[in-house]
Amino acid sequence: MRIGILGTGTVGRTLAAKLADTGHEVVIGTRDVEKTLGNNETDAMGNPPFRNWHAQHVGVKLGTFAEAASFGEVLINATSGSASLVALRAAGEENIDGKILMDISNPLDFSRGMPPSLTVCNTDSLAEQIQRVYSGVKVVKTLNTVTARLMVEPRQLADGDHHVFVSGNDAAARAQVAGYLKDWFGWREVIDLGDITTARGVEMYLPLWLRLWGATQTPVLNIKVVQ
Amino acid sequence: MRIGILGTGTVGRTLAAKLADTGHEVVIGTRDVEKTLGNNETDAMGNPPFRNWHAQHVGVKLGTFAEAASFGEVLINATSGSASLVALRAAGEENIDGKILMDISNPLDFSRGMPPSLTVCNTDSLAEQIQRVYSGVKVVKTLNTVTARLMVEPRQLADGDHHVFVSGNDAAARAQVAGYLKDWFGWREVIDLGDITTARGVEMYLPLWLRLWGATQTPVLNIKVVQ
Repeated sequence: MRIGILGTGTVGRTLAAKLADTGHEVVIGTRDVEKTLGNNETDAMGNPPFRNWHAQHVGVKLGTFAEAASFGEVLINATSGSASLVALRAAGEENIDGKILMDISNPLDFSRGMPPSLTVCNTDSLAEQIQRVYSGVKVVKTLNTVTARLMVEPRQLADGDHHVFVSGNDAAARAQVAGYLKDWFGWREVIDLGDITTARGVEMYLPLWLRLWGATQTPVLNIKVVQ
Repeated sequence: MRIGILGTGTVGRTLAAKLADTGHEVVIGTRDVEKTLGNNETDAMGNPPFRNWHAQHVGVKLGTFAEAASFGEVLINATSGSASLVALRAAGEENIDGKILMDISNPLDFSRGMPPSLTVCNTDSLAEQIQRVYSGVKVVKTLNTVTARLMVEPRQLADGDHHVFVSGNDAAARAQVAGYLKDWFGWREVIDLGDITTARGVEMYLPLWLRLWGATQTPVLNIKVVQ
Protein backbone atom coordinates (compact mmCIF):
# COMPACT_ATOMS: atom_id res chain seq x y z
CA MET A 1 0.00 0.00 0.00
CA ARG A 2 1.12 3.61 -0.57
CA ILE A 3 1.44 5.33 2.80
CA GLY A 4 2.19 8.98 3.48
CA ILE A 5 3.62 9.80 6.89
CA LEU A 6 3.78 13.37 8.17
CA GLY A 7 6.66 13.95 10.58
CA THR A 8 10.28 12.80 10.72
CA GLY A 9 10.67 12.41 14.49
CA THR A 10 10.84 9.14 16.40
CA VAL A 11 7.25 8.17 15.68
CA GLY A 12 7.40 8.95 11.97
CA ARG A 13 10.72 7.14 11.56
CA THR A 14 9.61 4.08 13.52
CA LEU A 15 6.41 3.72 11.51
CA ALA A 16 8.14 4.40 8.20
CA ALA A 17 10.86 1.83 8.84
CA LYS A 18 8.41 -0.86 9.86
CA LEU A 19 6.08 -0.24 6.93
CA ALA A 20 8.86 -0.04 4.35
CA ASP A 21 10.47 -3.18 5.75
CA THR A 22 7.20 -5.06 5.33
CA GLY A 23 6.66 -4.20 1.71
CA HIS A 24 4.74 -0.95 1.73
CA GLU A 25 5.67 2.10 -0.29
CA VAL A 26 6.34 4.95 2.10
CA VAL A 27 6.96 8.65 1.67
CA ILE A 28 7.78 10.47 4.88
CA GLY A 29 7.00 14.17 4.78
CA THR A 30 8.76 17.12 6.31
CA ARG A 31 8.37 20.89 6.21
CA ASP A 32 11.68 21.56 4.46
CA VAL A 33 13.43 18.65 2.75
CA GLU A 34 16.77 20.43 2.35
CA LYS A 35 16.83 21.43 5.98
CA THR A 36 15.88 17.95 7.18
CA LEU A 37 18.63 16.37 5.05
CA GLY A 38 21.18 19.05 5.93
CA ASN A 39 20.69 18.81 9.68
CA ASN A 40 23.71 17.32 11.45
CA GLU A 41 22.53 17.50 15.00
CA THR A 42 20.86 15.15 17.41
CA ASP A 43 17.47 16.63 18.29
CA ALA A 44 16.09 17.53 21.72
CA MET A 45 14.59 14.05 22.07
CA GLY A 46 17.96 12.39 21.46
CA ASN A 47 17.21 11.33 17.88
CA PRO A 48 20.22 11.19 15.56
CA PRO A 49 20.15 13.41 12.44
CA PHE A 50 17.56 12.29 9.90
CA ARG A 51 20.14 11.54 7.26
CA ASN A 52 21.91 9.07 9.51
CA TRP A 53 18.65 7.24 10.00
CA HIS A 54 17.77 7.58 6.33
CA ALA A 55 21.04 5.97 5.26
CA GLN A 56 19.86 2.81 7.00
CA HIS A 57 16.33 3.01 5.58
CA VAL A 58 16.81 3.78 1.93
CA GLY A 59 13.43 2.28 1.08
CA VAL A 60 11.70 5.23 2.70
CA LYS A 61 11.41 8.25 0.43
CA LEU A 62 11.64 11.74 1.91
CA GLY A 63 9.41 14.49 0.54
CA THR A 64 7.54 17.61 1.52
CA PHE A 65 4.37 17.32 3.57
CA ALA A 66 2.45 17.88 0.33
CA GLU A 67 4.37 15.17 -1.52
CA ALA A 68 3.87 12.64 1.27
CA ALA A 69 0.17 13.49 1.49
CA SER A 70 -0.34 13.35 -2.24
CA PHE A 71 1.48 10.00 -2.46
CA GLY A 72 -0.36 8.19 0.31
CA GLU A 73 -3.55 6.22 -0.12
CA VAL A 74 -3.59 6.29 3.69
CA LEU A 75 -1.98 9.07 5.72
CA ILE A 76 -0.46 9.08 9.18
CA ASN A 77 -0.04 12.23 11.26
CA ALA A 78 3.11 11.61 13.27
CA THR A 79 4.02 15.24 13.86
CA SER A 80 4.17 16.73 17.34
CA GLY A 81 0.80 17.99 18.52
CA SER A 82 1.88 21.62 18.41
CA ALA A 83 2.90 21.25 14.74
CA SER A 84 0.03 19.11 13.46
CA LEU A 85 -2.30 21.78 12.09
CA VAL A 86 0.58 23.65 10.46
CA ALA A 87 1.83 20.43 8.87
CA LEU A 88 -1.62 19.59 7.53
CA ARG A 89 -1.98 23.06 6.06
CA ALA A 90 1.36 22.54 4.30
CA ALA A 91 0.18 19.13 3.13
CA GLY A 92 -2.70 20.83 1.34
CA GLU A 93 -6.38 20.03 1.66
CA GLU A 94 -6.49 18.77 -1.93
CA ASN A 95 -3.92 16.09 -1.05
CA ILE A 96 -5.66 14.82 2.07
CA ASP A 97 -9.36 15.24 1.29
CA GLY A 98 -11.35 12.01 1.35
CA LYS A 99 -8.46 9.97 2.77
CA ILE A 100 -8.04 8.22 6.08
CA LEU A 101 -5.71 10.17 8.38
CA MET A 102 -4.44 8.10 11.28
CA ASP A 103 -3.78 10.76 13.91
CA ILE A 104 -1.08 9.63 16.34
CA SER A 105 -0.17 13.05 17.69
CA ASN A 106 -0.48 14.19 21.29
CA PRO A 107 -1.22 17.82 22.18
CA LEU A 108 1.64 18.04 24.66
CA ASP A 109 2.61 21.38 26.15
CA PHE A 110 6.25 21.40 27.30
CA SER A 111 6.24 25.12 28.06
CA ARG A 112 5.17 24.65 31.67
CA GLY A 113 7.81 22.11 32.68
CA MET A 114 7.88 18.34 32.98
CA PRO A 115 5.89 16.27 32.76
CA PRO A 116 4.08 18.17 30.01
CA SER A 117 0.47 19.26 30.27
CA LEU A 118 -1.93 19.34 27.31
CA THR A 119 -2.60 22.26 24.96
CA VAL A 120 -6.21 21.15 24.50
CA CYS A 121 -8.39 18.78 26.52
CA ASN A 122 -11.60 18.18 28.45
CA THR A 123 -14.22 19.63 26.09
CA ASP A 124 -12.13 19.35 22.94
CA SER A 125 -9.20 17.39 21.54
CA LEU A 126 -6.54 17.78 18.89
CA ALA A 127 -8.21 15.11 16.78
CA GLU A 128 -11.46 17.08 16.84
CA GLN A 129 -9.62 20.27 15.92
CA ILE A 130 -8.15 18.51 12.89
CA GLN A 131 -11.52 17.02 11.95
CA ARG A 132 -13.23 20.42 12.19
CA VAL A 133 -10.71 22.07 9.85
CA TYR A 134 -10.68 19.16 7.37
CA SER A 135 -14.25 17.92 7.31
CA GLY A 136 -13.61 15.76 4.24
CA VAL A 137 -10.79 13.82 5.89
CA LYS A 138 -11.56 10.60 7.75
CA VAL A 139 -9.63 11.32 10.95
CA VAL A 140 -9.04 8.23 13.08
CA LYS A 141 -7.23 8.84 16.36
CA THR A 142 -5.10 5.84 17.29
CA LEU A 143 -1.76 4.62 18.68
CA ASN A 144 -1.12 7.85 20.62
CA THR A 145 -1.34 5.88 23.89
CA VAL A 146 1.89 3.91 23.41
CA THR A 147 5.54 4.63 22.77
CA ALA A 148 6.75 4.39 19.17
CA ARG A 149 8.44 1.03 19.54
CA LEU A 150 5.26 -0.56 20.86
CA MET A 151 3.12 0.92 18.09
CA VAL A 152 4.83 -1.27 15.52
CA GLU A 153 5.85 -4.19 17.76
CA PRO A 154 3.00 -4.70 20.23
CA ARG A 155 3.88 -8.37 20.71
CA GLN A 156 7.21 -7.48 22.28
CA LEU A 157 5.15 -6.75 25.40
CA ALA A 158 3.14 -9.58 27.02
CA ASP A 159 2.79 -11.19 23.60
CA GLY A 160 0.45 -8.35 22.62
CA ASP A 161 -2.07 -8.96 25.40
CA HIS A 162 -2.95 -5.26 25.79
CA HIS A 163 -5.09 -2.77 23.92
CA VAL A 164 -5.08 0.05 21.46
CA PHE A 165 -8.02 2.23 20.50
CA VAL A 166 -9.66 3.87 17.48
CA SER A 167 -11.80 7.04 17.58
CA GLY A 168 -13.41 8.67 14.57
CA ASN A 169 -16.69 9.72 13.01
CA ASP A 170 -16.57 7.23 10.14
CA ALA A 171 -17.28 3.70 11.37
CA ALA A 172 -15.93 2.10 8.21
CA ALA A 173 -12.69 4.08 8.55
CA ARG A 174 -12.35 3.01 12.18
CA ALA A 175 -12.78 -0.62 11.15
CA GLN A 176 -10.28 -0.18 8.33
CA VAL A 177 -7.68 1.32 10.67
CA ALA A 178 -8.27 -1.46 13.21
CA GLY A 179 -7.52 -3.89 10.40
CA TYR A 180 -4.32 -2.04 9.49
CA LEU A 181 -3.14 -2.14 13.10
CA LYS A 182 -3.58 -5.90 13.15
CA ASP A 183 -2.21 -6.59 9.69
CA TRP A 184 0.68 -4.15 9.65
CA PHE A 185 1.87 -4.39 13.25
CA GLY A 186 0.29 -7.45 14.83
CA TRP A 187 -2.05 -5.78 17.33
CA ARG A 188 -4.28 -8.48 18.76
CA GLU A 189 -7.19 -6.40 19.95
CA VAL A 190 -8.34 -2.93 18.95
CA ILE A 191 -11.13 -1.26 20.93
CA ASP A 192 -13.53 0.88 18.92
CA LEU A 193 -14.41 3.80 21.20
CA GLY A 194 -16.77 5.51 18.77
CA ASP A 195 -16.93 9.01 17.35
CA ILE A 196 -14.13 11.57 17.24
CA THR A 197 -15.09 13.10 20.60
CA THR A 198 -13.81 9.89 22.21
CA ALA A 199 -10.33 11.07 21.24
CA ARG A 200 -10.56 13.25 24.34
CA GLY A 201 -10.34 10.06 26.36
CA VAL A 202 -7.18 8.75 24.74
CA GLU A 203 -5.51 12.17 24.64
CA MET A 204 -6.35 12.82 28.31
CA TYR A 205 -4.91 9.42 29.19
CA LEU A 206 -1.46 10.82 28.41
CA PRO A 207 -0.92 12.39 31.85
CA LEU A 208 -1.51 8.98 33.47
CA TRP A 209 0.77 7.33 30.92
CA LEU A 210 3.53 9.85 31.66
CA ARG A 211 3.18 9.20 35.40
CA LEU A 212 3.22 5.45 34.86
CA TRP A 213 6.43 5.87 32.90
CA GLY A 214 7.79 7.87 35.84
CA ALA A 215 6.68 5.32 38.40
CA THR A 216 7.89 2.29 36.47
CA GLN A 217 10.93 3.80 34.77
CA THR A 218 10.07 2.53 31.33
CA PRO A 219 7.92 3.88 28.50
CA VAL A 220 7.48 0.35 27.19
CA LEU A 221 4.15 -0.04 28.93
CA ASN A 222 0.53 -0.21 27.96
CA ILE A 223 -2.86 -0.90 29.45
CA LYS A 224 -5.07 -3.91 29.03
CA VAL A 225 -8.76 -3.25 29.49
CA VAL A 226 -10.11 -5.95 31.79
CA GLN A 227 -13.81 -6.81 31.81
CA MET B 1 -10.43 0.45 62.79
CA ARG B 2 -12.58 3.58 63.13
CA ILE B 3 -13.37 4.91 59.67
CA GLY B 4 -15.18 8.12 58.77
CA ILE B 5 -16.77 8.25 55.34
CA LEU B 6 -17.98 11.52 53.84
CA GLY B 7 -20.88 11.05 51.43
CA THR B 8 -23.98 8.85 51.41
CA GLY B 9 -24.20 8.12 47.67
CA THR B 10 -23.37 4.83 45.97
CA VAL B 11 -19.66 5.03 46.70
CA GLY B 12 -20.06 5.96 50.35
CA ARG B 13 -22.69 3.27 50.91
CA THR B 14 -20.70 0.57 49.15
CA LEU B 15 -17.55 1.32 51.13
CA ALA B 16 -19.44 1.67 54.43
CA ALA B 17 -21.26 -1.64 53.97
CA LYS B 18 -18.10 -3.54 53.09
CA LEU B 19 -16.07 -2.05 55.95
CA ALA B 20 -18.81 -2.53 58.56
CA ASP B 21 -19.40 -6.11 57.34
CA THR B 22 -15.71 -6.87 57.85
CA GLY B 23 -15.48 -5.65 61.42
CA HIS B 24 -14.63 -1.99 61.16
CA GLU B 25 -16.47 0.78 63.00
CA VAL B 26 -17.94 3.12 60.44
CA VAL B 27 -19.62 6.50 60.65
CA ILE B 28 -20.95 7.76 57.34
CA GLY B 29 -21.31 11.53 57.20
CA THR B 30 -23.88 13.71 55.51
CA ARG B 31 -24.64 17.40 55.35
CA ASP B 32 -28.01 17.18 57.10
CA VAL B 33 -28.82 14.00 59.04
CA GLU B 34 -32.54 14.72 59.37
CA LYS B 35 -32.87 15.41 55.69
CA THR B 36 -30.92 12.31 54.70
CA LEU B 37 -33.08 10.12 56.96
CA GLY B 38 -36.30 11.84 55.96
CA ASN B 39 -35.75 11.50 52.24
CA ASN B 40 -38.18 9.05 50.60
CA GLU B 41 -37.07 9.37 47.04
CA THR B 42 -34.77 7.48 44.74
CA ASP B 43 -31.98 9.85 43.71
CA ALA B 44 -30.90 10.90 40.22
CA MET B 45 -28.42 8.02 40.08
CA GLY B 46 -31.14 5.48 40.85
CA ASN B 47 -30.13 4.92 44.47
CA PRO B 48 -32.96 4.02 46.83
CA PRO B 49 -33.58 6.35 49.79
CA PHE B 50 -30.78 6.24 52.36
CA ARG B 51 -33.02 4.91 55.10
CA ASN B 52 -33.98 1.87 53.01
CA TRP B 53 -30.29 1.09 52.56
CA HIS B 54 -29.58 1.91 56.22
CA ALA B 55 -32.24 -0.53 57.43
CA GLN B 56 -30.14 -3.30 55.87
CA HIS B 57 -26.85 -1.96 57.23
CA VAL B 58 -27.57 -1.13 60.84
CA GLY B 59 -23.88 -1.49 61.75
CA VAL B 60 -23.13 1.74 59.90
CA LYS B 61 -23.78 4.86 61.98
CA LEU B 62 -25.03 8.00 60.29
CA GLY B 63 -23.73 11.38 61.44
CA THR B 64 -22.89 14.84 60.24
CA PHE B 65 -19.76 15.38 58.15
CA ALA B 66 -18.13 16.71 61.35
CA GLU B 67 -19.15 13.67 63.39
CA ALA B 68 -17.89 11.24 60.76
CA ALA B 69 -14.61 13.15 60.44
CA SER B 70 -14.11 13.39 64.17
CA PHE B 71 -14.84 9.69 64.62
CA GLY B 72 -12.52 8.34 61.96
CA GLU B 73 -8.88 7.45 62.46
CA VAL B 74 -8.84 7.28 58.66
CA LEU B 75 -11.19 9.30 56.47
CA ILE B 76 -12.63 8.64 53.04
CA ASN B 77 -13.95 11.37 50.77
CA ALA B 78 -16.77 9.70 48.84
CA THR B 79 -18.72 12.86 48.03
CA SER B 80 -19.29 13.99 44.47
CA GLY B 81 -16.46 16.13 43.18
CA SER B 82 -18.57 19.26 43.06
CA ALA B 83 -19.45 18.85 46.76
CA SER B 84 -16.07 17.76 48.14
CA LEU B 85 -14.67 21.10 49.30
CA VAL B 86 -18.00 22.11 50.85
CA ALA B 87 -18.24 18.77 52.65
CA LEU B 88 -14.70 19.09 54.00
CA ARG B 89 -15.41 22.60 55.24
CA ALA B 90 -18.45 21.24 57.08
CA ALA B 91 -16.31 18.40 58.44
CA GLY B 92 -14.08 21.00 60.09
CA GLU B 93 -10.33 21.33 59.77
CA GLU B 94 -9.87 20.38 63.44
CA ASN B 95 -11.51 17.01 62.74
CA ILE B 96 -9.44 16.13 59.69
CA ASP B 97 -6.06 17.69 60.42
CA GLY B 98 -3.19 15.20 60.55
CA LYS B 99 -5.31 12.31 59.28
CA ILE B 100 -5.15 10.31 56.09
CA LEU B 101 -7.95 11.31 53.72
CA MET B 102 -8.52 8.77 50.97
CA ASP B 103 -9.92 10.92 48.17
CA ILE B 104 -12.15 8.89 45.86
CA SER B 105 -14.04 11.78 44.31
CA ASN B 106 -14.06 12.73 40.64
CA PRO B 107 -14.45 16.35 39.50
CA LEU B 108 -17.22 15.53 37.04
CA ASP B 109 -19.13 18.32 35.35
CA PHE B 110 -22.59 17.16 34.24
CA SER B 111 -23.71 20.66 33.25
CA ARG B 112 -22.50 20.30 29.67
CA GLY B 113 -24.25 17.03 28.86
CA MET B 114 -23.17 13.41 28.79
CA PRO B 115 -20.64 12.04 29.11
CA PRO B 116 -19.52 14.57 31.72
CA SER B 117 -16.40 16.69 31.35
CA LEU B 118 -14.17 17.68 34.28
CA THR B 119 -14.43 20.81 36.42
CA VAL B 120 -10.66 20.87 36.94
CA CYS B 121 -7.86 19.15 35.03
CA ASN B 122 -4.60 19.42 33.10
CA THR B 123 -2.54 21.74 35.33
CA ASP B 124 -4.48 21.04 38.53
CA SER B 125 -6.70 18.38 40.08
CA LEU B 126 -9.37 18.12 42.73
CA ALA B 127 -6.98 16.22 44.99
CA GLU B 128 -4.47 19.07 44.76
CA GLN B 129 -7.20 21.61 45.49
CA ILE B 130 -8.10 19.68 48.65
CA GLN B 131 -4.44 19.35 49.65
CA ARG B 132 -3.84 23.07 49.17
CA VAL B 133 -6.75 24.04 51.40
CA TYR B 134 -5.92 21.43 54.08
CA SER B 135 -2.14 21.32 54.18
CA GLY B 136 -2.13 19.25 57.39
CA VAL B 137 -4.23 16.46 55.89
CA LYS B 138 -2.52 13.51 54.24
CA VAL B 139 -4.54 13.41 51.03
CA VAL B 140 -4.15 10.16 49.10
CA LYS B 141 -6.04 9.97 45.82
CA THR B 142 -7.16 6.43 45.10
CA LEU B 143 -9.97 4.17 43.83
CA ASN B 144 -11.54 6.93 41.69
CA THR B 145 -10.71 4.91 38.56
CA VAL B 146 -13.19 2.09 39.18
CA THR B 147 -16.91 1.71 39.81
CA ALA B 148 -18.02 1.36 43.44
CA ARG B 149 -18.63 -2.37 43.31
CA LEU B 150 -15.09 -3.02 42.06
CA MET B 151 -13.52 -0.78 44.70
CA VAL B 152 -14.51 -3.23 47.43
CA GLU B 153 -14.60 -6.44 45.39
CA PRO B 154 -11.70 -6.23 42.94
CA ARG B 155 -11.45 -10.01 42.67
CA GLN B 156 -14.86 -10.26 41.08
CA LEU B 157 -13.08 -9.16 37.90
CA ALA B 158 -10.31 -11.36 36.44
CA ASP B 159 -9.52 -12.56 39.95
CA GLY B 160 -8.14 -9.10 40.74
CA ASP B 161 -5.53 -9.09 37.97
CA HIS B 162 -5.80 -5.33 37.34
CA HIS B 163 -4.52 -2.19 39.02
CA VAL B 164 -5.41 0.65 41.30
CA PHE B 165 -3.26 3.68 42.09
CA VAL B 166 -2.23 5.91 44.97
CA SER B 167 -1.14 9.57 44.65
CA GLY B 168 -0.12 11.78 47.56
CA ASN B 169 2.69 13.88 48.99
CA ASP B 170 3.30 11.66 52.01
CA ALA B 171 5.05 8.43 50.99
CA ALA B 172 4.21 6.70 54.27
CA ALA B 173 0.53 7.60 53.85
CA ARG B 174 0.57 6.23 50.29
CA ALA B 175 2.04 2.98 51.55
CA GLN B 176 -0.49 2.82 54.36
CA VAL B 177 -3.40 3.32 51.95
CA ALA B 178 -1.98 0.70 49.60
CA GLY B 179 -2.00 -1.66 52.56
CA TYR B 180 -5.61 -0.81 53.39
CA LEU B 181 -6.67 -1.49 49.81
CA LYS B 182 -5.11 -4.93 49.99
CA ASP B 183 -6.24 -5.79 53.52
CA TRP B 184 -9.74 -4.33 53.40
CA PHE B 185 -10.78 -5.14 49.86
CA GLY B 186 -8.34 -7.68 48.44
CA TRP B 187 -6.59 -5.56 45.84
CA ARG B 188 -3.64 -7.55 44.54
CA GLU B 189 -1.46 -4.77 43.19
CA VAL B 190 -1.42 -1.05 43.96
CA ILE B 191 0.74 1.25 41.84
CA ASP B 192 2.38 4.13 43.69
CA LEU B 193 2.36 7.03 41.22
CA GLY B 194 4.09 9.52 43.51
CA ASP B 195 3.16 13.00 44.71
CA ILE B 196 -0.27 14.59 44.68
CA THR B 197 0.21 16.12 41.22
CA THR B 198 -0.03 12.59 39.83
CA ALA B 199 -3.72 12.73 40.77
CA ARG B 200 -4.12 14.68 37.52
CA GLY B 201 -3.35 11.43 35.73
CA VAL B 202 -5.99 9.34 37.46
CA GLU B 203 -8.62 12.10 37.36
CA MET B 204 -7.98 12.74 33.66
CA TYR B 205 -8.32 9.03 33.00
CA LEU B 206 -12.05 9.36 33.72
CA PRO B 207 -13.00 10.49 30.19
CA LEU B 208 -11.40 7.31 28.80
CA TRP B 209 -13.09 5.22 31.48
CA LEU B 210 -16.48 6.73 30.59
CA ARG B 211 -15.92 6.00 26.90
CA LEU B 212 -14.83 2.44 27.66
CA TRP B 213 -18.04 2.00 29.62
CA GLY B 214 -19.91 3.31 26.57
CA ALA B 215 -18.05 1.04 24.16
CA THR B 216 -18.32 -2.09 26.28
CA GLN B 217 -21.70 -1.45 27.93
CA THR B 218 -20.52 -2.18 31.46
CA PRO B 219 -18.91 -0.08 34.17
CA VAL B 220 -17.43 -3.22 35.68
CA LEU B 221 -14.12 -2.69 33.94
CA ASN B 222 -10.62 -1.71 34.89
CA ILE B 223 -7.17 -1.45 33.42
CA LYS B 224 -4.17 -3.62 33.99
CA VAL B 225 -0.83 -1.92 33.47
CA VAL B 226 1.29 -4.22 31.32
CA GLN B 227 5.07 -3.94 31.31
